[in-house]
Amino acid sequence: MFVILVYDVKEKRVGKALKVCRRYLHWVQNSVFEGELSRAQMERLRSDLREVLNLEEDSVVIYKFRTKHYFQRQTMGVEKGGEEEFI
Amino acid sequence: MFVILVYDVKEKRVGKALKVCRRYLHWVQNSVFEGELSRAQMERLRSDLREVLNLEEDSVVIYKFRTKHYFQRQTMGVEKGGEEEFI
Repeated sequence: MFVILVYDVKEKRVGKALKVCRRYLHWVQNSVFEGELSRAQMERLRSDLREVLNLEEDSVVIYKFRTKHYFQRQTMGVEKGGEEEFI
Repeated sequence: MFVILVYDVKEKRVGKALKVCRRYLHWVQNSVFEGELSRAQMERLRSDLREVLNLEEDSVVIYKFRTKHYFQRQTMGVEKGGEEEFI
């Protein structure tokens, strides 16, 4: 499946969350990641995130798609990362 | 079209960016918005954002879909906003 993940994580934990997400996904912007994951990888990502986050303070939104052909991505302003992975 | 918008905006401009995005979309999380827009509304949103942002420092990623039926959204942790709009 193709995944867009966005997190809103307190500063003290954001480094760890970044590291986990980069292990599975490509970085797009500050708190946004994209990538193709198997079901097993998705489960591991969620489990690794649960280990580093405080789910009473932090928030993660995961959008799942069958393929990435269902959407178009446009960027305004600074291109912060990962873009070249998808051209 | 259905739109997911994520911004990474410097703190001094984030209030204005939030206000613009809320005018067109539903707030999902810190810097994430969703909603159904016409092509004209999308153009106005982009133009309003250009007025409040510094595009040399700020970044906005817009994902566009024909419909919202192409994805599933999952949240981990705190539900921060807008969720009830889509149930």
